Amino acid sequence: MKLIEAIREEASCWIPRRLERLCCRLEEMGVGAALLSSQASLRYLAGYEAPIEWGTSPFTPCASVLVLISGRRPELLLAEGEVLDPAPSGVLVSRFPGYAFREPTDSMAELCSCIVDRLQGISRPVLAVETAHLPAALLIAIEHAHTPLLVIDLSAEVAAMRAIKDPAEIQLLREAVRLTDVGQSAAREAARPGISEIELFGEIRKAMEHAAGGRVPILADLISGSRSAEAGGLPGNRILREGEMVIVDLVPRYRGMWGDSCNTLVIGHASPAQNRLLDQVAEILAGLIKLVRPGAKACDLDATGRAKIAGLGGTYEHHTGHGLGASWHEEPRIVPYNTLELKPGMVLALEPGIYFEGQFGVRLESVMLVTDQGAEVLTRFNHRA
Amino acid sequence: MKLIEAIREEASCWIPRRLERLCCRLEEMGVGAALLSSQASLRYLAGYEAPIEWGTSPFTPCASVLVLISGRRPELLLAEGEVLDPAPSGVLVSRFPGYAFREPTDSMAELCSCIVDRLQGISRPVLAVETAHLPAALLIAIEHAHTPLLVIDLSAEVAAMRAIKDPAEIQLLREAVRLTDVGQSAAREAARPGISEIELFGEIRKAMEHAAGGRVPILADLISGSRSAEAGGLPGNRILREGEMVIVDLVPRYRGMWGDSCNTLVIGHASPAQNRLLDQVAEILAGLIKLVRPGAKACDLDATGRAKIAGLGGTYEHHTGHGLGASWHEEPRIVPYNTLELKPGMVLALEPGIYFEGQFGVRLESVMLVTDQGAEVLTRFNHRA
Repeated sequence: MKLIEAIREEASCWIPRRLERLCCRLEEMGVGAALLSSQASLRYLAGYEAPIEWGTSPFTPCASVLVLISGRRPELLLAEGEVLDPAPSGVLVSRFPGYAFREPTDSMAELCSCIVDRLQGISRPVLAVETAHLPAALLIAIEHAHTPLLVIDLSAEVAAMRAIKDPAEIQLLREAVRLTDVGQSAAREAARPGISEIELFGEIRKAMEHAAGGRVPILADLISGSRSAEAGGLPGNRILREGEMVIVDLVPRYRGMWGDSCNTLVIGHASPAQNRLLDQVAEILAGLIKLVRPGAKACDLDATGRAKIAGLGGTYEHHTGHGLGASWHEEPRIVPYNTLELKPGMVLALEPGIYFEGQFGVRLESVMLVTDQGAEVLTRFNHRA
Repeated sequence: MKLIEAIREEASCWIPRRLERLCCRLEEMGVGAALLSSQASLRYLAGYEAPIEWGTSPFTPCASVLVLISGRRPELLLAEGEVLDPAPSGVLVSRFPGYAFREPTDSMAELCSCIVDRLQGISRPVLAVETAHLPAALLIAIEHAHTPLLVIDLSAEVAAMRAIKDPAEIQLLREAVRLTDVGQSAAREAARPGISEIELFGEIRKAMEHAAGGRVPILADLISGSRSAEAGGLPGNRILREGEMVIVDLVPRYRGMWGDSCNTLVIGHASPAQNRLLDQVAEILAGLIKLVRPGAKACDLDATGRAKIAGLGGTYEHHTGHGLGASWHEEPRIVPYNTLELKPGMVLALEPGIYFEGQFGVRLESVMLVTDQGAEVLTRFNHRA
């Protein structure tokens, strides 16, 4: 099975390369030690897929930290009970106490003590962390235990690395996008007058989780009728009616990588005007995809999308697109201010939309890989089938 | 509708009381300012129900902080776009930039700047925070901007308050537990030979989300056949077969409060031995519930549960029960080391189980409110119907 092979190859080959690149960069920056604790970095650099669907654990508010120390082997500190399969090559995995019922445990205190221990005797007094994602408890413990360290943020370094995908990430993103195809087919199948938004979402999710063989975290907009004019929103108990539009934007996490796609369906029978508008937006999306190639600027793609939609007499008050990977929104962000040039290996979603306040909205979205020549569209379902 | 009334009354009456009690306690402790940032505290003290199902937002890694400053009105800092409905009485709600597409935004920097601003001129140099849940970025910003502050952790204070529920919490917990009844009925309805664990979970979730009229985060064990001997685990693609056991433990979040219940079903026709064992565990659960009253010690309940299960020739390697509320596991923890005495207003789950390695397991769980005289069981579905 392709997915399992990709996961194995990632753990044996690609994660070690990512770590090597980051460690080189940390050397250049004069960093003595780095602590990675964001969900995206732990996935990208250690293959650890944090459970997210039920919020912060009362037992392990911080279940994992990746410790990179100049001259030493990367070490993943992982609470007991957390799943890491497979463990990446070359990474030492050390467990600290998580939940226990026979005696009181303080997993954060245990983690603090591990990290204080590891930081002893580092060669340079510069500590790089993800300040938005590191619990203050760790910083307090480090500050109490050590001679002054300069603390710097390395989020931008990791984000820049993550913008260009390696072959393992691309393969996993193909699978995550494939799962959105399953969801969009299920949406087309189940969308009918009389079903509620949340029931429709239930059918979509059932199909996706069945295909995945397990639970799939999903960020989704599912909005019907006049709600579709609001561009985004969670499925509620609104009942779908004949002739209404429904926007179905599905962002599932599959083996730690986020897919994405959006379709707009007409419930029951579409009017000629609805079909024409959907065709026009589909053409605009197709036109944007043709512009995707190395060297294309994010802001130019954005401007083109907005101009084309303006040509239909409308607008969209959101980005034109974004990258995706270990997070559901990352570089390349296709927005007005971003002068970033696309490069081969980037994976991005484009999602032009048009919304008529109080009436309805339309949005269509596909995901593509930037290749040497242009774009390979990873999304397979046909928006206008 | 009861739920909406309970939510309104909570916002207008009970949240202000919770805040008042905490602020009194902070005064006693000599605290000048407090920052609350855990999901549970933000729900309990401000009514903010953090979105959790799709992990940390790439836009707003910290979407909200509650700021309590001696002598000032409580202030909830909330990223633009986050939902708070209704806002609690007496709390100032201030928005900071979250996601934007027209210009680059750094929501964490904005939040840091808000908090540094608020902390200027506090009357006492003691800052109370939840160290496990406060991003290091905030602490760094505060340390850079202010004369030295003593930083202390107030997690234990809030946890102690939360162990005893007020009428609004009890009403909301009734509704959250009621949602598990819906899930358990759906499980009984859908469990049949040939369905997979994840398909069964899909049917359960569909029923619960339909009843809730929207998305419901769910922590769940759903394990069948020999997997049920493992006590916990996510639903996978294992197919249920005639005569097997399946453990269905459902922990949904409903309006920010966590419900819980567990049942064990036999797929198809139950054997006399299976029925006997299920009856025996149901009797043990009923016996434990009879012991729940003010003054009963957590460790004694735990010891009784273990002794009774040992009488059946088995054991369980987990807690006997736990409190629930704005988190899915809190005081009163029914575990061997906990000498805590139950008090009226506590809400707890009891969940004795018995597991036979490599073969199968059984666990039954109900949730109850500790009353003046004993226990009112909130769980309505009948495990042995």
